[in-house]
Amino acid sequence: MQLVKTNNELRTQLNKLDTGCSIGLVPTMGALHEGHLFLIRRSLEDTDFTIVSIFVNPLQFGPNEDYDNYPRTLEIDCNVAAALGVDFVYAPSATEILGRSMRTFVDIKNMGDRLCGAARPGHFRGVCTIVAKLFNLISPDRAYFGQKDIQQFSIIKTMIRDLNFDIEPVMCPIVREKDGLALSSRNVYLAKKERQEATVLYQCLKEANEHFLAGERDAVSLIKHSVEKIETKETARIDYVEIVDEEMQPVSQIAKGDILAVAVYFGNTRLIDNVIMGQDLDV
Amino acid sequence: MQLVKTNNELRTQLNKLDTGCSIGLVPTMGALHEGHLFLIRRSLEDTDFTIVSIFVNPLQFGPNEDYDNYPRTLEIDCNVAAALGVDFVYAPSATEILGRSMRTFVDIKNMGDRLCGAARPGHFRGVCTIVAKLFNLISPDRAYFGQKDIQQFSIIKTMIRDLNFDIEPVMCPIVREKDGLALSSRNVYLAKKERQEATVLYQCLKEANEHFLAGERDAVSLIKHSVEKIETKETARIDYVEIVDEEMQPVSQIAKGDILAVAVYFGNTRLIDNVIMGQDLDV
Repeated sequence: MQLVKTNNELRTQLNKLDTGCSIGLVPTMGALHEGHLFLIRRSLEDTDFTIVSIFVNPLQFGPNEDYDNYPRTLEIDCNVAAALGVDFVYAPSATEILGRSMRTFVDIKNMGDRLCGAARPGHFRGVCTIVAKLFNLISPDRAYFGQKDIQQFSIIKTMIRDLNFDIEPVMCPIVREKDGLALSSRNVYLAKKERQEATVLYQCLKEANEHFLAGERDAVSLIKHSVEKIETKETARIDYVEIVDEEMQPVSQIAKGDILAVAVYFGNTRLIDNVIMGQDLDV
Repeated sequence: MQLVKTNNELRTQLNKLDTGCSIGLVPTMGALHEGHLFLIRRSLEDTDFTIVSIFVNPLQFGPNEDYDNYPRTLEIDCNVAAALGVDFVYAPSATEILGRSMRTFVDIKNMGDRLCGAARPGHFRGVCTIVAKLFNLISPDRAYFGQKDIQQFSIIKTMIRDLNFDIEPVMCPIVREKDGLALSSRNVYLAKKERQEATVLYQCLKEANEHFLAGERDAVSLIKHSVEKIETKETARIDYVEIVDEEMQPVSQIAKGDILAVAVYFGNTRLIDNVIMGQDLDV
């Protein structure tokens, strides 16, 4: 496993690969957990050469968000990546990636200003811009993303289509704790009571999916039910509970493949989770 | 010379090229003139495989601009390209390039809203988005642009740097008629008197450059002189006369390499031209 920190070194090393060698990219912000490991293992199975990028991207954090405190565990992450058989960890500094006068931004209309984008203006613009840079630096054949950030996946898939990147986006399922809490680098922020109450998200998604499978198609009613369930928890404060289609547009009649997506604060920690209607929640 | 009209065919054909074969891209809107031919010849000299793209990009035209009337001469253009030795002409339809639900846009902050961008809001966003698509479809080693659209070149150079495209942007000099008028596909719109008066742009740029070479460094004074000269022409209406640095930011003290850029309507036809201070205007 090689740790690469600069764009030049990355290009130099990649130029040495055989033609025809397929490259898998797993873009992360580090603090790797089992959810990331799922992506990495999938890339290792699918492609000849796996690159994990680790970059806590300032462009995707708002001014009052947790950029400064976001967990940074590069040494541990590298050990984990090495043990799995990752070829490169690419961990550039902010200066290396953003330079001194970054002026170019990639934006997706009517997808990035809703759901997580409503509470985090500019977030997806920041994500897309950095992912576009990584795509151009690495030219992967496949790029792996988690279903937990399903809006991010949908937006990146749209960017790949619209800008004609020759890259296959792959979405991997949400990995959960035994009690159903979706893995997240932000779970470490949760106090004991918040951690206990946060399992309501899984329970609520599971129940909603069961209602859907039992024939419920009305979005308003399913959302109302979910909101009420979450609001029974003392430390919970809902950001959004929405049902959208694959392109993140709200639906009133639910169809298979639509998504129930939630963002809820437990104390000061904002967690997100989702279920694709008709699909099993458990990996 | 092969005429390619779809993205799929383009990718299939390009995949057949030998590894290591260098590709030159000349992005155009067709109606090829000697200015374009200069770019094409340069690409033919520099690279192994030259692709001329011909696409009248709707995203870069404003609602009251000449998109519908813009000259379209694909058959002649193909003959010209073939005679020069171009390998591919890539001429996709608007549907092929834009699809039905294009949502992704590439924008450059603080560069695209000035000069030509002030009169043409969204113009450079449209240019960058389509050029990014062409870059991803073709993965050229070099891309060739004319100095006449120097703001466009500066913006694309910035996009290449900021998004880490592995492409060398090459700027080729302005090709002029014998009387100094810069070649443009829009020159065909000019009525006889407008055509005669339009030579004032060349005269004014040449004079300004001579003043610079003689020691003039004050931007305000040089701009004033140029404005007065252009305003002597009956059919001329100035859009802008500005002196900017390489990154299209206005300067007050002129340095070698700064740019005097002008946009002037003659009748209803908007012409642009520029001179890089200290450089010869004539190719």
